[in-house]
Amino acid sequence: MTATSEPDDSFHVFDTTLRDGAQREGINLTVADKLAIARHLDDFGVGFIEGGWPGANPRDTEFFARAQEEIDFKHARLVAFGATRRAGAKASEDPQVRALLESGAGVITLVAKSYDRHVELALRTTLDENLAMVADTVSFLKGEGRRVFVDCEHFFDGYRANPEYAKAVVRAAAGAGADVVVLCDTNGGMLPAQIQAVVSTVLADTGARLGIHAQDDTGCAVANTLAAVDAGATHVQCTANGYGERVGNANLFPVVAALELKYGKQVLPEGRLREMTRISHAIAEVVNLTPSTHQPYVGVSAFAHKAGLHASAIKVDPDLYQHIDPEQVGNTMRMLVSDMAGRASVELKGKELGVDLGGDREVVARVVERVKERELRGYTYEAADASFELLLRGEVEGRPLKYFEVESWRAIVEDRPDGTHANEATVKLWAKGERIVATAEGNGPVNALDRALRVALEKIYPQLAKLDLVDYKVRILEGVHGTQSTTRVLISTTDGAGEWSTVGVAENVIAASWQALEDAYTYGLLRAKVEPAE
Amino acid sequence: MTATSEPDDSFHVFDTTLRDGAQREGINLTVADKLAIARHLDDFGVGFIEGGWPGANPRDTEFFARAQEEIDFKHARLVAFGATRRAGAKASEDPQVRALLESGAGVITLVAKSYDRHVELALRTTLDENLAMVADTVSFLKGEGRRVFVDCEHFFDGYRANPEYAKAVVRAAAGAGADVVVLCDTNGGMLPAQIQAVVSTVLADTGARLGIHAQDDTGCAVANTLAAVDAGATHVQCTANGYGERVGNANLFPVVAALELKYGKQVLPEGRLREMTRISHAIAEVVNLTPSTHQPYVGVSAFAHKAGLHASAIKVDPDLYQHIDPEQVGNTMRMLVSDMAGRASVELKGKELGVDLGGDREVVARVVERVKERELRGYTYEAADASFELLLRGEVEGRPLKYFEVESWRAIVEDRPDGTHANEATVKLWAKGERIVATAEGNGPVNALDRALRVALEKIYPQLAKLDLVDYKVRILEGVHGTQSTTRVLISTTDGAGEWSTVGVAENVIAASWQALEDAYTYGLLRAKVEPAE
Repeated sequence: MTATSEPDDSFHVFDTTLRDGAQREGINLTVADKLAIARHLDDFGVGFIEGGWPGANPRDTEFFARAQEEIDFKHARLVAFGATRRAGAKASEDPQVRALLESGAGVITLVAKSYDRHVELALRTTLDENLAMVADTVSFLKGEGRRVFVDCEHFFDGYRANPEYAKAVVRAAAGAGADVVVLCDTNGGMLPAQIQAVVSTVLADTGARLGIHAQDDTGCAVANTLAAVDAGATHVQCTANGYGERVGNANLFPVVAALELKYGKQVLPEGRLREMTRISHAIAEVVNLTPSTHQPYVGVSAFAHKAGLHASAIKVDPDLYQHIDPEQVGNTMRMLVSDMAGRASVELKGKELGVDLGGDREVVARVVERVKERELRGYTYEAADASFELLLRGEVEGRPLKYFEVESWRAIVEDRPDGTHANEATVKLWAKGERIVATAEGNGPVNALDRALRVALEKIYPQLAKLDLVDYKVRILEGVHGTQSTTRVLISTTDGAGEWSTVGVAENVIAASWQALEDAYTYGLLRAKVEPAE
Repeated sequence: MTATSEPDDSFHVFDTTLRDGAQREGINLTVADKLAIARHLDDFGVGFIEGGWPGANPRDTEFFARAQEEIDFKHARLVAFGATRRAGAKASEDPQVRALLESGAGVITLVAKSYDRHVELALRTTLDENLAMVADTVSFLKGEGRRVFVDCEHFFDGYRANPEYAKAVVRAAAGAGADVVVLCDTNGGMLPAQIQAVVSTVLADTGARLGIHAQDDTGCAVANTLAAVDAGATHVQCTANGYGERVGNANLFPVVAALELKYGKQVLPEGRLREMTRISHAIAEVVNLTPSTHQPYVGVSAFAHKAGLHASAIKVDPDLYQHIDPEQVGNTMRMLVSDMAGRASVELKGKELGVDLGGDREVVARVVERVKERELRGYTYEAADASFELLLRGEVEGRPLKYFEVESWRAIVEDRPDGTHANEATVKLWAKGERIVATAEGNGPVNALDRALRVALEKIYPQLAKLDLVDYKVRILEGVHGTQSTTRVLISTTDGAGEWSTVGVAENVIAASWQALEDAYTYGLLRAKVEPAE
């Protein structure tokens, strides 16, 4: 496509992560966070970034000042959010309305009541005065040269209770010059068919340009947003990763992906959709939430395949089990190995890992057997790529990959009368013909074992110095016999350049951890291209 | 409502958590897990529970055998999943089809290809033979007295490519006697408007009873399921918490809630919807995934209010910012940043436990403080009633409840050259003025500590002989520094008459387990009405 096909004003992708998204439980944004997110959103190519409510809190005021100074927006326009003037006041003299002007934002979203009951109960004014508040505030801000969008709060509940009044608010806003009137499902209780019917009727009856703001309380916010577009809305309000009050808001990423890939409607600048996975994860990092592994399009599991039935079909044609090519959204396909997997997944996985199975049906069958047998005992290879690769290479070579031979180990945890704990471990092993005995302390028995193993091995393999344990997970399997159950441990290790996961299963947590540690260090040496010892 | 309004066969809530849900990355179910989940789903009141693919793997075969023996289903019927017969074979002689019969399940779901390209590429047979495979297998199983549902895999993609062939598969299934033909959006790429159009047409053209199976790759699985119901489907296939391959399946909970609360259609037995939040969380515990805090209806944040604007409106009327009453789904409204809520729940909890707080505001405030401070460090009292009661009683009495005073303990795990492990623990404590030292072995360090503590205490408190540890769970919190993270242990204990849970948090798993064990035995003695020692 040429530059002329770039999205124009006829369709708005409006992001409100910094305002409505920040209402999510667990999110608490600093000004620096807000600036970082605004950069990512601009990079993604949204048309509008709602930055907050200047004047309502000092952080938002500071954000608007700094954003205009520090960010050179490529695509997005900055939007300030605020309310219509107070009842009985003049818009030009309302300090809250003046703060919107003073923010310097070229676009302003005004929240307005459109549910008669709320006007009376929450605003405590008359229905007519509310209409005047909308019209006056829009006129004033338009007169000051701003673009104005009006958010009709609780529009769908209000429309159900009093459709004429709800439409009167839309007409008041549009009549005073509002560029878009946004119908909000503030409580998030609507379903797509209802949204579509109401948006169609309001569009036909008022002729106003309409937008949609959906909350996800029924789990339908993405579908509700698309239903409004189907009915003629040309402005969608979303948040990155669906962050927002209660369950959250309509998620920006699946909405944009559906519009571009399913509707064939370009709503982002050329090529930006391919950045979606990266940007979704980057924003999660800024707000300090773990990226959702199962988020549509952008989750690490979104194109992960486990079932043996699927794997054999994917070998024939990847499109058979994927609705889009993951690269279109910057994601990748992954094959998971589990006891449901068959030969096809093992072959694909071997290819992915660069282990040549040479179409050797016997080796593949042996690996499938090993995986099934071990998963029955509690191992899980889909979460332990490195342990799977060691198993695979062991079967290909006909013997396990060994850099060291463990003679024995011991861990002691002692609770002392003063309430402190002593954790000590000793490891005895052979490497390159040398017998090594090492002892170390740690803040727990596994940490002590890890240190002792490292002390022992570093003498022979200095490459291990840069290895670092980054995650440690424990799961008790079949907890029907209390502490006598089987224990599974998963460990993630990094060498600075990459990360790998290993698994151990045993009758107790220390022995299971030891297995996962042995695999972790063995794999680290393999990655460092160290030749196995004799 | 009376019993006659209970859901009948005219609408099916079909759960496939145990089959399709188990395809989720990170889920690896044991037979015990499957039995536990089946009990929860039956308790919730779904009509059908698809248990797995008997014959395809030994775990599923075992599950069907044990489920029929061990579970007394109140509502649900057990469903076995399998494929149509192989090309060129007789259904009655196909071992895979025979395994379905041998599972003993009264209902069978058969997966069938309905996309012409898949028949040729993946099945490698002719389009006509595929139709014969569907018809033969259905006829054979119906002849054996089973109810048969047919899952048309990739139906919507197949329909787009070759609508006549896709419909021919529906006709072949229905014509051979299938009770329901389920249209599957296997790749999950559809949007609600497309689903509604296709389901309407297929229903009009074939007259078959139709069901829907939606995957969540566009983030629209719930809406897609409802769109199919709008178009006339009377059978919905879902999974608990939306677990499933890639992004997941249509989430059972918002689908059922929408049908009951938004459509006014009773699809569960009377009163079961109120158990939804509890059951959603319980299933998450069994599969060992943290319950999603932002899941519609059932997440802990689903009715949590943060915005100042909202908070003041909610003071006027809670319905202003909630689309339903949270109690309808067993959830509760939470105001964030408010210890009033905390105070009220401590008082309620005290009453529930029979601890008289006598309206003592100071004690209540102290308990709220303690709980807040300890939960910040990783404790969780929601899942550890007994530890909470000990904390509560300690604050009421002004000192902790003590039956024994621990001097020190020690645990040793040793991996011996012959590959076996020795686990030994020593406990030193005082009880009723006596100093006791006891040593015991176990199959792991925690088991050895448990035995040593029991050996020591039974001399003084013979009541402990009937105590039994029934569950043991470990969670690593904040795993950013590998094995240096905090560890939380939950232990469930029984005395034959009842079961209680205790929690321990420490820098290592052994120390955390010890805390939970101490609480477990202290609570056991309290339950046995033993007077605390001096």
